[in-house]
Amino acid sequence: MIVLGIDVGGTSIKGAAIRDNGEVLDRFSVDMDRDATPEVTFGGLAELANKFIKEHKYDEPISGIGLGIPGLINKKTGEVASSPNMPKWINFNIKNYIEERTHLPVRIVNDASAAALGEARFGVGKQYNYLVMITLGTGVGGGIVFDKQLIDGNEGKGAQLGHGLVEVNGRLCGCGRKGCLEAYASATALIKETKKSLEEHPESLLHEAVKEVGKVDARAAFIAARKGDKEGQRLVDEYVFYLGEGLLNFCNLLRPEIIVLSGGVANEGEYLISRLESYLSTRGYGMKNSPKVVIRQAVLGYDSGKIGAACLFFE
Amino acid sequence: MIVLGIDVGGTSIKGAAIRDNGEVLDRFSVDMDRDATPEVTFGGLAELANKFIKEHKYDEPISGIGLGIPGLINKKTGEVASSPNMPKWINFNIKNYIEERTHLPVRIVNDASAAALGEARFGVGKQYNYLVMITLGTGVGGGIVFDKQLIDGNEGKGAQLGHGLVEVNGRLCGCGRKGCLEAYASATALIKETKKSLEEHPESLLHEAVKEVGKVDARAAFIAARKGDKEGQRLVDEYVFYLGEGLLNFCNLLRPEIIVLSGGVANEGEYLISRLESYLSTRGYGMKNSPKVVIRQAVLGYDSGKIGAACLFFE
Repeated sequence: MIVLGIDVGGTSIKGAAIRDNGEVLDRFSVDMDRDATPEVTFGGLAELANKFIKEHKYDEPISGIGLGIPGLINKKTGEVASSPNMPKWINFNIKNYIEERTHLPVRIVNDASAAALGEARFGVGKQYNYLVMITLGTGVGGGIVFDKQLIDGNEGKGAQLGHGLVEVNGRLCGCGRKGCLEAYASATALIKETKKSLEEHPESLLHEAVKEVGKVDARAAFIAARKGDKEGQRLVDEYVFYLGEGLLNFCNLLRPEIIVLSGGVANEGEYLISRLESYLSTRGYGMKNSPKVVIRQAVLGYDSGKIGAACLFFE
Repeated sequence: MIVLGIDVGGTSIKGAAIRDNGEVLDRFSVDMDRDATPEVTFGGLAELANKFIKEHKYDEPISGIGLGIPGLINKKTGEVASSPNMPKWINFNIKNYIEERTHLPVRIVNDASAAALGEARFGVGKQYNYLVMITLGTGVGGGIVFDKQLIDGNEGKGAQLGHGLVEVNGRLCGCGRKGCLEAYASATALIKETKKSLEEHPESLLHEAVKEVGKVDARAAFIAARKGDKEGQRLVDEYVFYLGEGLLNFCNLLRPEIIVLSGGVANEGEYLISRLESYLSTRGYGMKNSPKVVIRQAVLGYDSGKIGAACLFFE
C-alpha cells in the first residue's frame, strides 16, 4: 500500500508518498499562509495532491491521504475545531473538503500524535510496544503509542502531554491553566528563564553563548552549562528537574518502555538524556521494581509526522 | 463463556462465577491472611476454586480464572513483584502456581485496573468508549479503559493514577515521591487534614461529625460541610481543588468521555461530583472546545473487581 502522508505545519505543508514498509518515496512541500481561510489552504493542498499523484506513478495506486493537523481535531468526523496559530480555522471539516476534491479517503490526526506514531512504527521506537513521545519545542506536545496503536482518547483530543501539572498554581501556561509541564519544559520557557539570567548575571558565559548562537534561544543555557558556567548549569539543572518530574508522571500513569524526545531541545542529545536518566533513576516510584524506561532522541526528523499520518491507513 | 473472577483484597478474597454477559452467577469469599506466604494464600485459593467448580455445575464449563491482584504485577508472565500490604509476596508466579493446581488457564491484572474494566464493560461506563476510573480510598488507584480494553502499559504496571504530580516537592506520598495526587486526594490525606483542623478549631462542627461517625474518617469533613461549618467547607474545598486538578490532568493527557469515582470518598456522591464538575467547567483547557467529560460514581460496588478480572477472558 502507498499513501500520501502530509504534515501541516505553521510555516509549510510537507508531504510524501509513503509505502507501508515506512519507505519515503517522493516528497513535496509548499509554503503555508497562517492567515489564509481553511478553504484556501486545504483547497490548495487538494490541488497539490492531485498534481503529485498525476506526476508520480508507482507499482500501485495511492490508497489514501493522511494528514497531521496542528490543532484541536476530531478524528472521527475529520473536523478541526481550532488551531492556535491558524486564526481562521474554526470548525472546518478537512476530511470532507479534501475527499471531495481528490476522490481519495482522507484521515486526520493531531500532528504530535502523528509524529509519535511514525517514530513508533518506523523510527526509534520500532522494537518497543509501549512508547511515549514528547516534543520539546515552542510548546510541549506528544503522543502515546501502545501496541503500535495511537492512544489519543475521545475524538483524538487526548495526549496533550504538555498540559499535565507539575506544579499546582505554578507558572501560567499558554493554554490558560497554571503549572502545566509546557510552562517549564518548552523551549519558550527555557528562553524566558535564560533572559532573566542574562539580566541578573552580566558575568555569566550565557552572554557569550548568545553571541555564538546569534540570538537568545534554548541552546544558550546548554552551551554555557557545557563550559561549566554556573548560571548555565543552574538553568539546565532546573530544566532537567521539571522535565524529569514530567517524565516520571508519564512513567507512573502510562508505564512506557521508551520515552522519545523530539523538538529543538531534544537536539541536546546525550547531554540532556543522561541527565534525565540519572534524575529518574534516583527517584523512587517511577522505576522501582519496574522495568527500566529508556529515553532516546527521535530519529526520523521532519519525516516522522508524514510517515505517522500515512500510518493511519496501515494496519 | 463462564469464568471465575477473583478479587484478592487485603482482608478477604472474593470470587464469583461470571458469565460473559456480565451476569454474576454464584459468589464465594474467604478471609485473607496478609502475613501468609504466597504458597499458602494461592494454594488455598486454588483449592477453593477447585471445590467451587465441583459444587457448581452450569450449562457450560468454567473456561478460566481471572485474578485482580493488589500489587506490582507482570501480566505477561503472571508474576507479582511485590505488594504493599503482603510482605511475603516477592517475585511469585501466581499464574503458574494456580494453573498447575486447577488445570485451568489463569490471567492476572492489577486490582484497580480490574475494577475499571468491570465498570467499563458492565457498569456505569457501559455506553462509553473512553473511561478513566479513580479509586479514592486508603490510597488512590485507578484504571484506564479505552475501546473496552485496558490501557495499563508495559507488563500491566501502568495506570498508577494516584502517582502523578499535583505539586512538585509537595506532600510526601507513601510511594516515596513528593506531591503525588494520592497525598492530597486519598481518604488517608483527608483524614490527616481533618485531624489538624480538629486540633486547631475546637468550635468547629467537625467534632460533632466525628462523634456521629464514631471515629475520624473521611466522612467527617463532608458531614460538617453539609451543615455549613466553615472548617468542614474549607477541607472539602481544598479536597475538591486538588482532586479537580488531578482530574484535569487525566482530561488533558487521556481525554476520557467519563471519569468514574469509586472507593470510600466516592460515596459522597452528587455532593462531591457536582463540586468537581463545577471546578472543571471553570478551568480552561481541560474542557474548552472539547466534548464534556462526565463524572459518575461507580455502580458495581465490590463486584467490579471480580467482573473485571473475569473480563480478561472475554473479547
